[in-house]
Amino acid sequence: MKQSALFPKTNKNAPKDEISTNAQLLVRAGFINKLMAGVYTYLPLGLRVLKKIENIIREEINAIGGQEIYMPALHPHENYVTTGREKIDILFHLESATGKKYVLGQSHEEIVVPLVKQYINSYKDLPIYLYQIQTKFRNELRAKSGILRGREFMMKDLYSFHKSEEDFQDYYEKSKVAYRNIFNRIGIGELTYLTFASGGTFSKYSHEFQTVTPSGEDIIYLCLKCEVAVNKEIIGEQNSCPECNAKNLVEKKSIEVGNIFPLKTKFSKAFDLMYTDEKGVRKEIVMGCYGIGLGRALGTVVEINNDANGIIWPKEIAPFDVHLISINNDEQGDAIYASLQKNGLEVLYDDRKETAGSKLKDADLIGIPVRVVVSKKTGENVEVKIRKTGETKICKLNEAIETIKGTNV
Amino acid sequence: MKQSALFPKTNKNAPKDEISTNAQLLVRAGFINKLMAGVYTYLPLGLRVLKKIENIIREEINAIGGQEIYMPALHPHENYVTTGREKIDILFHLESATGKKYVLGQSHEEIVVPLVKQYINSYKDLPIYLYQIQTKFRNELRAKSGILRGREFMMKDLYSFHKSEEDFQDYYEKSKVAYRNIFNRIGIGELTYLTFASGGTFSKYSHEFQTVTPSGEDIIYLCLKCEVAVNKEIIGEQNSCPECNAKNLVEKKSIEVGNIFPLKTKFSKAFDLMYTDEKGVRKEIVMGCYGIGLGRALGTVVEINNDANGIIWPKEIAPFDVHLISINNDEQGDAIYASLQKNGLEVLYDDRKETAGSKLKDADLIGIPVRVVVSKKTGENVEVKIRKTGETKICKLNEAIETIKGTNV
Repeated sequence: MKQSALFPKTNKNAPKDEISTNAQLLVRAGFINKLMAGVYTYLPLGLRVLKKIENIIREEINAIGGQEIYMPALHPHENYVTTGREKIDILFHLESATGKKYVLGQSHEEIVVPLVKQYINSYKDLPIYLYQIQTKFRNELRAKSGILRGREFMMKDLYSFHKSEEDFQDYYEKSKVAYRNIFNRIGIGELTYLTFASGGTFSKYSHEFQTVTPSGEDIIYLCLKCEVAVNKEIIGEQNSCPECNAKNLVEKKSIEVGNIFPLKTKFSKAFDLMYTDEKGVRKEIVMGCYGIGLGRALGTVVEINNDANGIIWPKEIAPFDVHLISINNDEQGDAIYASLQKNGLEVLYDDRKETAGSKLKDADLIGIPVRVVVSKKTGENVEVKIRKTGETKICKLNEAIETIKGTNV
Repeated sequence: MKQSALFPKTNKNAPKDEISTNAQLLVRAGFINKLMAGVYTYLPLGLRVLKKIENIIREEINAIGGQEIYMPALHPHENYVTTGREKIDILFHLESATGKKYVLGQSHEEIVVPLVKQYINSYKDLPIYLYQIQTKFRNELRAKSGILRGREFMMKDLYSFHKSEEDFQDYYEKSKVAYRNIFNRIGIGELTYLTFASGGTFSKYSHEFQTVTPSGEDIIYLCLKCEVAVNKEIIGEQNSCPECNAKNLVEKKSIEVGNIFPLKTKFSKAFDLMYTDEKGVRKEIVMGCYGIGLGRALGTVVEINNDANGIIWPKEIAPFDVHLISINNDEQGDAIYASLQKNGLEVLYDDRKETAGSKLKDADLIGIPVRVVVSKKTGENVEVKIRKTGETKICKLNEAIETIKGTNV
């Protein structure tokens, strides 16, 4: 798209009320806008990235049999009484015009279990894997980490329903692979570790995916050999690597970008969710739940992919494939814009009447992986710059296109 | 996808608590599930249709320059005090853990205007067209029409910002064309009429798109010659056709599927949203807003496209292109399933162990435009049935594929 039409312009100055790197950069570069603490608008650039993350998650969850649904955010309060979660402090409470008590969904066990109960009866109906990509509301007391911890945020939540603990365990392992794929594709795989965490009162462990960065709010103890970690919350009980038993774990700050949780029969019991097995015996359904916060994933990408000049987007979730910049050469710029699009590339074309310096600075801030500059100086060629490495070259357009398509940054 | 894995099975019986045709059929056929009055879950089939409607709307709004953003549902209460809308009865009220007063977004003027104000300064920044596809919350007293009037629903809301009334008018006309395209593509164009409605206290008229059906909650007066209508709410002031002045208008029940509204400077004034013109003079920005409820559009499609056996989906928004049914011939069924997919078609493949009668009945209820049956009887051929016309034929698979791709139903 043409940058002259893009809403909004970038802000040169860092916002005063943001202390986190992700929010500072994303606000300055025009990806998000803060409405109030923990509540943000996604602007066109930010929404493009969010949608790419969403589609990667959708593809990987579909690949492990997930069926997408869309549940409401308004929940009947009585369902939380049933599960004993009506007093959780992050619940938002409200009331309908007819006097019915609602809460806003902070998670969806209280909705998906009664839903499944209406349709599942026999072992033949199992297993089933339902997920959604939907807005969650959490009445957080502190919301200071930009889009890492929001009062309102987009989440992928998957719920699995099984005949047995063994069947659940099989799927739980598959979910780890799907999560690994997702974090690799969005560009945080190398710094993201499977982390053993509390399983609540009913499971020994749950598992988190923790991305190591100094800006993280969590603390994990990492086994460098096995590349797994233990969350600080359980280091008292589990003070060695759960895989090799080594004691030399390294303390790291990290961000929890995903969580998978064996629910056992906690929610099935609450709602009496049963099935009839092959012998006609009624049994409780075994459940798991699997979450990824999309905004938090996006914020984490920015926390670990930036430099003094701005954001450095990983290729697969960049808002555009290439940032084309015309410096006083709109005729050639327009022609190249058309060519790049004809080659199936998503192009942000800086056709604004700004100085060269301002355009190049904005390009660094926005952080699209490859920059292509045309000016009077470049003649028949273009100048290509890789955002991540800073590497530049002057070449023919065809070679530039190959670079854009092939660049693994 | 294989129907044996699809969640959920269809319900043979009509739900007792639904009085509207759209909800009865959509619930029975497994497209939606009711959580409480006016609050529904979209199940896999329903979400597929909703996403297709969403994409059609996105394409048509992008085509008139719309830039997609995503604004929050949690709104600061004080913004409604600024516009004087804090007492609207459909607002849901709630409070944060820190004592801040929120309302849930029933529309987004109170958010988008202050947002735009942060970035727009000069005439060079105008016009701008921002839209989102996002969840709205309305504390409706009555919510009895299935997904036609929800307490929580997905909406496309577009806001336009202009230098002048003339510039606004140009865009307003373009929006009518985009809306016309949307309603044609989702299959309700023929019964949908541009309707003159109240412009509130500040504009003479707004315009609605009303779909004529006996189940509608609105009443319009239609000029059969001009194919425009007048909403009952203004028939006192406007009792003739606004285009040809004819008095012989026909009273019809209808559903409001879209609304476009000249906001003039109502919200710009409230938030002091100004721009500097070519001569350095500060002026108020002229606005329009443009809404379509996605669930209501989906429900309306069902209200006007059904028969005694179930839903009849228009081609472009059907959950699948073709419903393949194997009757005791899974070997041929599996091969044809693969072939159809290889031809780029979206296939629901009924591979369940059910009786032929039950499978054919479910297919009629679900309402995919083309049904393809393979059985021992069909030999090397398949039986093709068009859901809308009931027309059937026995033919080779290649001919069936041409029918599926070409069928305009």
